[in-house]
Amino acid sequence: MPDGSMIFPADEYRRRIKALQAEMAIGGMDVLLLTSPADIFYTTGFLTRFWESPARPWFIVVPATGDPIAIIPTIGAALMGRCWITDIRTWRAPDPVDDGVSLLAEALITSVPAAGRIGLPMGLETHLRMPLADYLRVQDLVAPRQFIDGTAAVCRVREIKSEAEIDKIRATCDVANAAFDRVRDFAQLGTPLIDVFRDFQVALLQAGADWVSYVAGAAGQGGYGDVISPADDRPLQLGDVLMLDTGAVRDGYFCDFDRNFAIGPPSDAVRRAHDALYTATDVTLTALRPGMLARDAHRIMAEALTRAGAVASGGRLGHGLGVTLTEWPSLTPLDTTELREGMVLTLEPSVDIAPGLIMVHEENIVLRAHGPELLSRRAPAALPVILP
Amino acid sequence: MPDGSMIFPADEYRRRIKALQAEMAIGGMDVLLLTSPADIFYTTGFLTRFWESPARPWFIVVPATGDPIAIIPTIGAALMGRCWITDIRTWRAPDPVDDGVSLLAEALITSVPAAGRIGLPMGLETHLRMPLADYLRVQDLVAPRQFIDGTAAVCRVREIKSEAEIDKIRATCDVANAAFDRVRDFAQLGTPLIDVFRDFQVALLQAGADWVSYVAGAAGQGGYGDVISPADDRPLQLGDVLMLDTGAVRDGYFCDFDRNFAIGPPSDAVRRAHDALYTATDVTLTALRPGMLARDAHRIMAEALTRAGAVASGGRLGHGLGVTLTEWPSLTPLDTTELREGMVLTLEPSVDIAPGLIMVHEENIVLRAHGPELLSRRAPAALPVILP
Repeated sequence: MPDGSMIFPADEYRRRIKALQAEMAIGGMDVLLLTSPADIFYTTGFLTRFWESPARPWFIVVPATGDPIAIIPTIGAALMGRCWITDIRTWRAPDPVDDGVSLLAEALITSVPAAGRIGLPMGLETHLRMPLADYLRVQDLVAPRQFIDGTAAVCRVREIKSEAEIDKIRATCDVANAAFDRVRDFAQLGTPLIDVFRDFQVALLQAGADWVSYVAGAAGQGGYGDVISPADDRPLQLGDVLMLDTGAVRDGYFCDFDRNFAIGPPSDAVRRAHDALYTATDVTLTALRPGMLARDAHRIMAEALTRAGAVASGGRLGHGLGVTLTEWPSLTPLDTTELREGMVLTLEPSVDIAPGLIMVHEENIVLRAHGPELLSRRAPAALPVILP
Repeated sequence: MPDGSMIFPADEYRRRIKALQAEMAIGGMDVLLLTSPADIFYTTGFLTRFWESPARPWFIVVPATGDPIAIIPTIGAALMGRCWITDIRTWRAPDPVDDGVSLLAEALITSVPAAGRIGLPMGLETHLRMPLADYLRVQDLVAPRQFIDGTAAVCRVREIKSEAEIDKIRATCDVANAAFDRVRDFAQLGTPLIDVFRDFQVALLQAGADWVSYVAGAAGQGGYGDVISPADDRPLQLGDVLMLDTGAVRDGYFCDFDRNFAIGPPSDAVRRAHDALYTATDVTLTALRPGMLARDAHRIMAEALTRAGAVASGGRLGHGLGVTLTEWPSLTPLDTTELREGMVLTLEPSVDIAPGLIMVHEENIVLRAHGPELLSRRAPAALPVILP
């Protein structure tokens, strides 16, 4: 990242704020209060790994018109000052007596009429990143102003990526493409899985990741049991399927896709599972269109897996992607979100090979008017085999 | 991590649960509801990077007696099943209609009498990691049962580390010690800071980090401006002070300390700042005792900096450390937490060299009856110089 940059020019952030303000008007919000790393990065360009410390809350107040107000710990003032935000109010956090509460309440009271409403993301896939007790105090201090759910406003804006954002996600996917190309260099028969995970993270960094927020994977005979466990020290064995999945980060944007490898020649069951996953992804890449719903994408993938003779796993088969590893919508039978042009999504078909044994594929796409455009480099049609 | 392990034997977790239950009794809680990655890892051993996805909430209910209940998304059942928890209740998340809400409410209603109280961390340095709207629904469903602040219970237990935990933190510090030893290999005159950050992360992984949750740092002429900005591509220059700070993770436990390097011979001002920081740390290593308060540690460090002719920065000068990068308490003038034997802390004196120019030192210690025991290898007394 160039010095003093905030990833994008100020115009990109102004466009986002205007889009949020349009949604706020629809939702009847006088301001929108944001507390999460993703929402604060999205609106200001403020990018730091300091979120790893849970010690301090951070607040962005988006008014109905005009620029946002940053109410943040003093330790962040220098960095926020290099972003496009000019109204920066600070306090020395953590403060056990008043950890930004009165500063935040004052900004809300000034920006919102007494009968007004404060939007706050409270819905699916959101958290309030401040102490709940402090939120309750703010609620009291700003009464009779009311807090209402602002999830839809944030979600509808963040879901649609600008071309500048799509370029960033594509660049992060390229980092992962390059790292996946090197898997054969460090994953061999006998290599402990934990070493594979470490070397994969090294490869991602060497390929240009700023940091590696997520690596998961698994290896097991004829498939794997789950996709979220940390690596163990079991060595790779003949007959294993190795899966590596990454959410690397570059300029604050994530990729999220996986690749599978057979250690030695795969069994017929593994080959069939792989072919079904590959075909289901192909079908979805061909069929998906704006105007469909998230559950339609799930149905297309699940039906393609069934037609290919496989058993679709029960979980979601993809999701949004961008400034967090996973974003709205969720490709499940229950999600009725309309898929729109400019959404960046993962297609993540998963099959049950046997009880407790699964295989998962994943690609990253942006949805265009004519259908999906790949952001990850398409996985090979044949399951790559790592020979001893 | 060995296969199927949960970092520690079940007895370690049982001891923690008993300690929590003792604190719950003092606080008048019938159950304790935990939602954060740190609290769930702490009570169950459930370790995954999957927390990076904000899509799904996870719940642990600690009853007044007996073992905890895990109420979690199906995708985590296999991994939780390898931990010591036996009562695992799952739902297929994310579910836009009922994302674990009714399962959680049912468990709370069954475990808590109608006049009872549910502890929930709501205080300083905590967040509720579930959608706020769902929390409000649970609150309605379980009424007249009341939610009360459970922060003190969690804080008082997590603050004191067992010897097994101290060993883990020491091991992670050793990883960082080894990586800091290699800084001269990749940080030279002319190296862009962003490359230094990448190579430092690689060095941490190669030294045995499972992953690198936090790397920060800075480089600037005669000091640096802040310690939370991401790296830019400015090359290291003669007269720069380079600082690298890391929260690497091994077996779920963090280290958190930094090291400074002069690029070419340091100025007198930098040398004086370094000496003051080194002396202030020495003074604190000698003087700190259980029974002092967090603010006493701050005062000891700040006064030692003043005596050494330096200007102490305004922020906190250290904090707790363990299953998150920063934990309670905070070494600030406002924190009256009693320092107790077995606390793992960072000592982080910081000085203002000139307006907008600081220098920060950091060491990790465990507080013993007789005073601090270093967990990080003590920084060299003389500021290391990287010569062209």
